[in-house]
Amino acid sequence: MTAPAAPPAYDELRKLHRDAATLNSVGSLLGWDQETYMPPAASAHRADQQGLIATLTHERKTTPRIGELLATCEAAKPSDPDIAANLREMRRDYHLATKLPGELVAELAKTTSLAQDAWKEARQKSDFALFAPWLEKVMALTRRKAECYGVPPDGELYDALLDEYEPGMTAREIDAIFIPLRTRLSALVARIAKSTKKPNARLLDLKAPQTAQHAFGLDILAAMGFDLNAGRLDTTAHPFCSGMAPGDTRLTTRYNTDSFLEPLYGTMHEAGHGLYEQGLPKESHWGEPLAEAVSLGLHESQSRMWENFVGRSRPFWAWALPKAAKHLSPLLDGVDLDEIYGAANTVEPSFIRVEADEATYNLHIMLRFQLERELISGRLAINDLPAAWNKTFKDYLGLDVPDDRRGCLQDVHWAFGLVGYFPTYTLGNLFAAQFWEKINADIPDLDDRMTRGDFAPLKAWLNTHIHAHGRRYRAAELCQRITGRPLSADPLVNHLNTKLAPLYGV
Amino acid sequence: MTAPAAPPAYDELRKLHRDAATLNSVGSLLGWDQETYMPPAASAHRADQQGLIATLTHERKTTPRIGELLATCEAAKPSDPDIAANLREMRRDYHLATKLPGELVAELAKTTSLAQDAWKEARQKSDFALFAPWLEKVMALTRRKAECYGVPPDGELYDALLDEYEPGMTAREIDAIFIPLRTRLSALVARIAKSTKKPNARLLDLKAPQTAQHAFGLDILAAMGFDLNAGRLDTTAHPFCSGMAPGDTRLTTRYNTDSFLEPLYGTMHEAGHGLYEQGLPKESHWGEPLAEAVSLGLHESQSRMWENFVGRSRPFWAWALPKAAKHLSPLLDGVDLDEIYGAANTVEPSFIRVEADEATYNLHIMLRFQLERELISGRLAINDLPAAWNKTFKDYLGLDVPDDRRGCLQDVHWAFGLVGYFPTYTLGNLFAAQFWEKINADIPDLDDRMTRGDFAPLKAWLNTHIHAHGRRYRAAELCQRITGRPLSADPLVNHLNTKLAPLYGV
Repeated sequence: MTAPAAPPAYDELRKLHRDAATLNSVGSLLGWDQETYMPPAASAHRADQQGLIATLTHERKTTPRIGELLATCEAAKPSDPDIAANLREMRRDYHLATKLPGELVAELAKTTSLAQDAWKEARQKSDFALFAPWLEKVMALTRRKAECYGVPPDGELYDALLDEYEPGMTAREIDAIFIPLRTRLSALVARIAKSTKKPNARLLDLKAPQTAQHAFGLDILAAMGFDLNAGRLDTTAHPFCSGMAPGDTRLTTRYNTDSFLEPLYGTMHEAGHGLYEQGLPKESHWGEPLAEAVSLGLHESQSRMWENFVGRSRPFWAWALPKAAKHLSPLLDGVDLDEIYGAANTVEPSFIRVEADEATYNLHIMLRFQLERELISGRLAINDLPAAWNKTFKDYLGLDVPDDRRGCLQDVHWAFGLVGYFPTYTLGNLFAAQFWEKINADIPDLDDRMTRGDFAPLKAWLNTHIHAHGRRYRAAELCQRITGRPLSADPLVNHLNTKLAPLYGV
Repeated sequence: MTAPAAPPAYDELRKLHRDAATLNSVGSLLGWDQETYMPPAASAHRADQQGLIATLTHERKTTPRIGELLATCEAAKPSDPDIAANLREMRRDYHLATKLPGELVAELAKTTSLAQDAWKEARQKSDFALFAPWLEKVMALTRRKAECYGVPPDGELYDALLDEYEPGMTAREIDAIFIPLRTRLSALVARIAKSTKKPNARLLDLKAPQTAQHAFGLDILAAMGFDLNAGRLDTTAHPFCSGMAPGDTRLTTRYNTDSFLEPLYGTMHEAGHGLYEQGLPKESHWGEPLAEAVSLGLHESQSRMWENFVGRSRPFWAWALPKAAKHLSPLLDGVDLDEIYGAANTVEPSFIRVEADEATYNLHIMLRFQLERELISGRLAINDLPAAWNKTFKDYLGLDVPDDRRGCLQDVHWAFGLVGYFPTYTLGNLFAAQFWEKINADIPDLDDRMTRGDFAPLKAWLNTHIHAHGRRYRAAELCQRITGRPLSADPLVNHLNTKLAPLYGV
């Protein structure tokens, strides 16, 4: 709660933020509905609705009144830590919201919309030349965007973009972690690729009825502590989590795959995001930074923790296998713990990021981080991207990319102008691994508890140490406070080595 | 389309109306979601979202700029009939939207919200005394509302309220139709009540699985021509239709009843509303009166036509029975056409309006019309309402009301301040009957076509003669244009007599 001494200017500031957040939450519902239940013929008008709500939200976020109120509040140098944290982050948001000229925002919206169409065609035809001129335009506009945001002292243009998704993080800091991570992961993946010992992977092809998978998924959500009274699980083409409003966090998953494991991990991943959203203090601080997530990387740490550190663990499967066998009966009859645990931890270099396993995934990300940084700086020309991609892919994952569809055309991010976004995926894995070590130190019997299906202490730990703070601390500070040291590659590498070495005999 | 000579003021006027309608459509989605998929814990924030969207919509509908633009456009005396119709109705809407002082709107919102709570408790306890003081307040405020709208020349206070739901209609005009209707319906219902010949009603208690009923309902929607590419069918506690946006008309129904007939007719009723919404020219005139429904009575005529004139007809069942038997197998094995047709036309006086049959329903409505008119005029005191209700009920339906729960406390409308709303239900039945005669004259083989499941000519007729016009004509004018005469009680009475006399041997 806010301290009683909060000045009227601060109360007005909170009210303005609350209204903007409420409008924004309406936009989130429009977006959720569009992916779930909206009739196809409604799409043209849905764009009008979204455009109008986005305009109204933007007006509220950029009103000069916020600037005036911020200046008044900051001048008072409030000692209340809640107020200080909110003001710091509100200032940041106001800066980002007001820094881009309207003409650039409109140009970016229009160009990225057309670039997405070009990308779709280019990917389908595996023809980079069709996308290249659009990527050129998007990168030029993205560079202008970075210049408007402003480059930090001693930083580079890329930092200004990264900051949007991972506040306060710089490319140089990421390099310091990614470089050792890459070397050690590449070595591990190479050893695994050469190993003759493989987990039995036949379970990856087991098709189960959708209703049975959904019921199993709901059981898992309940065990994780996801509150279905304040949320839902639906199906969409692409799974997502929308923590749209107080008491309203909606997850989606998809079941149309060959394996029941992929949907399960999709559900657990989104539920990890969902637990973060449900754990934020939205009832008391709606619209304020104190009720918002720290960063994309921190958010991803929550989804990856439940997906990989819980969901691909042996204790989890000791509990979940009988449950799964019952729901999916008779599909898993005779399957033992070793078999399901092995299948859940299959590692094999492949071309497509979104299909990659826990170990190789990060190599896909580091490749993208390196190349997009070079694209923005101008060190890499657009036309040289495919060759650079393929060469780096061979270096990192040991495979020859057969075509651009399975190479530099596979992701839509760059067509959207999302530069600086990719590294947050691996930052999420790194945060998760480092938190996981601390969690196991704080809850020494966590494995035993998970074996019994008791995930309550884990959820409570995450609620207390991460979710409850909102944006009070930046990610690096939160990591330092929780784990006592800065983010490092060691915990993730150790986790993967410890788990995968026995499975693959390496 | 608008004539090329449309002045800039008119274009601006259309733009303002389009934006207001788009915002309003967002509110409709919030409302739909609230009844269908919203998690329970989201309800407090949903009220904030709805409040904010309602405020923004109201601001747009009452901006003085609309008044200026209307004056400019009206002064130009446009000859284009589209423009003239839009201006006439936009003027009406602006008048209604700006006529109530903000203080009265707020007072009404607050009082009716509390009155609804009081009504709920009073109904549950069947204790009118708990509701009486609230009804007193609501009626006083509603009277003030009517005074703000203004009484038409030679009219009464009630007309100002009725006009909100049935533009241009007066209580005196309704009386001229309702009085003969009541006499003749009461006589018919009394004869039926005394008859020893009854249709076999055992089908009214057949419970069918929800999935089978839903699949059957979707088949019926498809046959009716409801476009599921531009709409949906979901389940809610109370069925409704929301024609929320271009390409987006959502129906709901409910299956938790003892009979499969009630959900079927619920679905057909809402789909009748839905066909009207889908038939309005929303793509070309979104936000303009030309793309909106004429009145509540006209809207109800569309739902009642499909529910009663189609759905309770013998030709419909000749086609639908085999379909139903297949979907609900083996529930309807051995049921013949006479049996299902009889069950669908069961007539029996009962206490609750929403459970009433096609014939007695209108008697429930006429009672409410009479009493609410007396309440508003002050001729009937609040405390005398229960006695007046029970006496009138005995007169109209021949039954002694056992308690107020099954009497004057059964409907929520008055707690909402909805006075002048009830008669539109029976106006809907009257319009439907009068249109139905004309439709059968225009499509002489309609019965044959329905027997074959071919409802396309009926839908096309409704599209052309009613839906396509939007609010170009008021209801009375539309009725005159289509049927060549003013609205009358005869078609409805003839329809019921012709159908029910042979079934009941009266």
